[in-house]
Amino acid sequence: MSDPLVIFTPSGKRGRFPVGTPVLTAARQLGVDLDSVCGGRGICSKCQVQPGFGEFAKHGVTVARDALSDWNAVEERYRAKRGMIDGRRLGCQAQILSDVVIDVPPESQVHKQVIRKSAAEREIAMDPATRTLLVEVAEPDMHEPSGDFERLQTALREQWGVERVEADLSILRRLQPALRKGGWKVTVALHRGNHDAAPRILDLWPGFFEGAIHGLAIDLGSTTIAAHLCDLRDGRVLASSGLMNPQIRFGEDLMSRVSYAMMNPGGDVEMTRAVREAIDRLAQEIAAEAGVDPASIYELVFVCNPVMHHLLLGIDPVELGQAPFALATGSSLSLGARDLELSAVNPAAQVYVLPCIAGHVGADCAAVALAEEPQTSKDMVLIVDVGTNAEILLGNEARVLACSSPTGPAFEGAQISSGQRAAPGAIERVEIDPATREPRFRVIGCELWSDDPGFAEAAGPITGICGSGIIEAVAEMRMAGLLDARGLIGSAEQTGSPRCEPDGRTHSYLLHDASAAGGPRILVTQGDIRAIQLAKSALYAGAQLLMDEIGIEKVDRVVLAGAFGAHISPRHAMVLGMIPDVPLEKVVSAGNAAGTGARIALASVAARDAIEALVHRIHKVETAIEPRFQEHFVAANAIPHATAPFPCLRAIVSLPEPAFNSGGGSERRRRRS
Amino acid sequence: MSDPLVIFTPSGKRGRFPVGTPVLTAARQLGVDLDSVCGGRGICSKCQVQPGFGEFAKHGVTVARDALSDWNAVEERYRAKRGMIDGRRLGCQAQILSDVVIDVPPESQVHKQVIRKSAAEREIAMDPATRTLLVEVAEPDMHEPSGDFERLQTALREQWGVERVEADLSILRRLQPALRKGGWKVTVALHRGNHDAAPRILDLWPGFFEGAIHGLAIDLGSTTIAAHLCDLRDGRVLASSGLMNPQIRFGEDLMSRVSYAMMNPGGDVEMTRAVREAIDRLAQEIAAEAGVDPASIYELVFVCNPVMHHLLLGIDPVELGQAPFALATGSSLSLGARDLELSAVNPAAQVYVLPCIAGHVGADCAAVALAEEPQTSKDMVLIVDVGTNAEILLGNEARVLACSSPTGPAFEGAQISSGQRAAPGAIERVEIDPATREPRFRVIGCELWSDDPGFAEAAGPITGICGSGIIEAVAEMRMAGLLDARGLIGSAEQTGSPRCEPDGRTHSYLLHDASAAGGPRILVTQGDIRAIQLAKSALYAGAQLLMDEIGIEKVDRVVLAGAFGAHISPRHAMVLGMIPDVPLEKVVSAGNAAGTGARIALASVAARDAIEALVHRIHKVETAIEPRFQEHFVAANAIPHATAPFPCLRAIVSLPEPAFNSGGGSERRRRRS
Repeated sequence: MSDPLVIFTPSGKRGRFPVGTPVLTAARQLGVDLDSVCGGRGICSKCQVQPGFGEFAKHGVTVARDALSDWNAVEERYRAKRGMIDGRRLGCQAQILSDVVIDVPPESQVHKQVIRKSAAEREIAMDPATRTLLVEVAEPDMHEPSGDFERLQTALREQWGVERVEADLSILRRLQPALRKGGWKVTVALHRGNHDAAPRILDLWPGFFEGAIHGLAIDLGSTTIAAHLCDLRDGRVLASSGLMNPQIRFGEDLMSRVSYAMMNPGGDVEMTRAVREAIDRLAQEIAAEAGVDPASIYELVFVCNPVMHHLLLGIDPVELGQAPFALATGSSLSLGARDLELSAVNPAAQVYVLPCIAGHVGADCAAVALAEEPQTSKDMVLIVDVGTNAEILLGNEARVLACSSPTGPAFEGAQISSGQRAAPGAIERVEIDPATREPRFRVIGCELWSDDPGFAEAAGPITGICGSGIIEAVAEMRMAGLLDARGLIGSAEQTGSPRCEPDGRTHSYLLHDASAAGGPRILVTQGDIRAIQLAKSALYAGAQLLMDEIGIEKVDRVVLAGAFGAHISPRHAMVLGMIPDVPLEKVVSAGNAAGTGARIALASVAARDAIEALVHRIHKVETAIEPRFQEHFVAANAIPHATAPFPCLRAIVSLPEPAFNSGGGSERRRRRS
Repeated sequence: MSDPLVIFTPSGKRGRFPVGTPVLTAARQLGVDLDSVCGGRGICSKCQVQPGFGEFAKHGVTVARDALSDWNAVEERYRAKRGMIDGRRLGCQAQILSDVVIDVPPESQVHKQVIRKSAAEREIAMDPATRTLLVEVAEPDMHEPSGDFERLQTALREQWGVERVEADLSILRRLQPALRKGGWKVTVALHRGNHDAAPRILDLWPGFFEGAIHGLAIDLGSTTIAAHLCDLRDGRVLASSGLMNPQIRFGEDLMSRVSYAMMNPGGDVEMTRAVREAIDRLAQEIAAEAGVDPASIYELVFVCNPVMHHLLLGIDPVELGQAPFALATGSSLSLGARDLELSAVNPAAQVYVLPCIAGHVGADCAAVALAEEPQTSKDMVLIVDVGTNAEILLGNEARVLACSSPTGPAFEGAQISSGQRAAPGAIERVEIDPATREPRFRVIGCELWSDDPGFAEAAGPITGICGSGIIEAVAEMRMAGLLDARGLIGSAEQTGSPRCEPDGRTHSYLLHDASAAGGPRILVTQGDIRAIQLAKSALYAGAQLLMDEIGIEKVDRVVLAGAFGAHISPRHAMVLGMIPDVPLEKVVSAGNAAGTGARIALASVAARDAIEALVHRIHKVETAIEPRFQEHFVAANAIPHATAPFPCLRAIVSLPEPAFNSGGGSERRRRRS
């Protein structure tokens, strides 16, 4: 008689196993996705399955009522203590006696985390660096003396296949009482080392530990620090939060922080202390928000640009401020949270810092590449991560190039006369009627447009204009003929709009006047236009440089990344000439791709290996020393561009072509004054 | 024409090399012992050689004047700056042009350190875990961006064959300025990890660092902490020092310290703090003694018994106080000095703790095995390390056994009525005339015997009796017939010596009366005899247990180790029956073998591997659970032994056989009282 046939659903995997084989064993041998945390000891209940009985015509089997072994003592004890859904069995205890069909319910499958990227969603198999494992340790024997820790090592090798486990003295100190309290069973939080490093016990609990362990994915930007708190077992995001980078008080952009370090002895140490304290605060806040103990955070992943990278690590960034822009180190780093003096998280927490690509192209860009995977793209994709610095990736499965471009903080609303951070009260969307040249807008925190009834009450005080607002405003002004291709704002006479007010030798466009209500007058000034032009020229020139290098005239699609990228309107970005001309439907927003990359690295050790390998393959282009950069930058100063025709854009948008310089407002005013 | 022939002296190694081969390269290929620290850059001058010219009949060559290349710029610069002995050349610069004889002077040979063991001396090839290496790092290149650290890693791989080097953030922080200051040359202090661990940069200096780096070999005993400060380049001992273990205030012996931890919550933490502070103090003192900066100490090696081991590591030793005597961990440990909160040494200093053999047989015993190598002995050797606990090793190249025996501190002069530590004023040697039964003695710090003229002036005040003194006194009393085989002191009547004074129901022997000068009366009391009997019985019983296990009736030789072992007179030890009967010339003292083992582990990574392998092979015998131990202990209570005949001893020593019990002093006194 042949061995019993076992069929697993929903996978359909099937095989024959000797009578008495536990269901979990059969599932493992067939590669069926069935969870288990306790190693088959009937404790964790992750391996619950639902046997089916009777006729299964589809599978060609009939399952007898006694196809599985009777409930054993372990199962009974579990059911009595915790309860179980009717019909369910523990896969590690129930043994196969005859042909049987076994359904694996969704909650018994090893969790796969769906992580959103640009258009598609993506499944990340959970493979975190730190996981909890229950082990049963042999009791000491005077005749075969060995340390408790050595017997724990043996147990981890035999029961979980983990070799050469190490532990700090703080763990060794707690090991003996924990083993005795747990009756020679103990749960360890085990951190797999990077590459060849030995696995390390970060924490331990007597018996079976049912609590969760958590990780923080941190996108450490020049302006903001954003974090996701994730459950390390299933990757779920429990809370997302952010705060301003307190280093802003030392300089708005990266180079001013490098200058601060150069001019002020110990300045780098001050900035390091500030950012580490902020991360500690953020960890506390985000844990409170999720209602978990910050000491349950055992993993942190950081993505950041090179200057933030060095300042986080406590390395003076001075070399990043001058050619040849040498990084102190660019490889991925595995550290203890203690090395970064982080005290809010678990004292044994481990830190992973993604690799930098070059002195100007940081771990944040690597994280974007990890999230967006340009190296798997069939078509030629341009990925721009828009922040205070723009990181730009261009490539496809054949080749990937990267550079960074100094856009400055204008896209984030800084250096803009009425600029402000994206917060309630900030204008975030703008439309200007091409006929009347009158604007309407929306503010953050309100769904209504400014010309909708009830807007004034619903919107509350209007305080300024944020990054996406200024981009839309400038693009709308250009489309409405208020702004010429060189970026000059016309006078009231030239444009026929009384909103174009003289402002010294230039003009400003009045977007909103709240002065009657004691609020500000929100204007787009000529200086604002110049700031946006500088930023967008830098971005475009960087992209163009990569296109030159790869030898292409146009890209197939564009991904806008960055916390801010999520809010940029592709059409307005194209009118401004921020990005090369492509069909509008080929421009997508990836949201905070760097943050997504950090989450992926938190969820998966394999992803860490993958990005480390990819970073070695990425070809870096240094904008600062490339003579053509300046050329491209100048040509990109016009809106949308001095020489590139932008046919895709012009097919969907009409761009009037006034010229406000000769005989225009500013010239006339100069003559008058 | 064949390649030039090169002959090295004194090794006689010879080979043919292409014209233009540097002498250092030829030496390396032939395996000639020629030092180099700078990797052949003409900086360190360690590779100086002395070429010989003219006729060498013995070697069959004639060496032309121009057999080596002319002085090059590097050599000239070195000679101008530092000077060189006439006729010397730098081996890395001088090239072989024709047949030549090259003498390697002793100072250019890689140092081998002679470490004294028992009878013989032993050469240890210097192979320390930490060494300094000069590397030349490529300058950064914007077109091939890589971090300074990654280029340092490449340089270490290419120039020294060291792979996967790691560094702490504190090193990364200092790397960029150091590289630039040193003109892209930097000296690193590199620590090779244990087993698979990655090598680690502990320190770095711009350019070539000529200073020394140091290591501490520490024998952490229950009573004393002894340390050797060594130069890690050549293994020389620069200073040796010791201090009392401050844990003594928590309990004299190990078990009383374990009790202290059990009875007082937090007691183990107190004891850990005390011993770590003492080690810090010792490191400072010993560095001051040697005139070096304690921050130049990069390596520490610890040997200690299991209780001290746990207390050093901050692990509660409570499990070591009760069966099954489970160690928290027994494997060798590689730690940072920081993990032990040691602050006097370099902050990056690395600690190696030798493996423990069992819950009662510690790393100190492993160190004795490393020093004395029983596993290479052709004959059956018994090694006893006499301290507060005795560690006992028995074996030969076939098999090695170990146990530990609770001798207590009597052998160290504790628990003895007039006992004191070995210090000036302590009686350390004793002779009693068998005819007159009058004693004479010597005290520490004075070469004269007490009956020599001028002794009183030279010796100074006599304060007590130390460990070796009490052993000699008891043995001499036995040989003089003042003490019977059961250990009873006879009365004045029975012995005919007025020095046998009644003392309650027993008698004491007056060794020295300084009361006239206001000093103490130094007596050997019946209680002292009992304390020595207990200690020596435990020692003998342990040895006997190992002999039983291995199935032998006698051993071939005995090594007495321990700081105290150095001072024990083998003849007196044998009279006492401390050790099994062997010919007297087969008993040698190994001095502080545990300390020697620590020095060997400090000097050689290979030795660390060797002892870790040996510890796995050593068979452990647990005296506490072995029923025969008690039996052997009782039989060994007699002096020298109740049943063993001790023929070798009796051949050289006459042992009178009085019996002071029946009708003797104590009995009579009882009747009288």
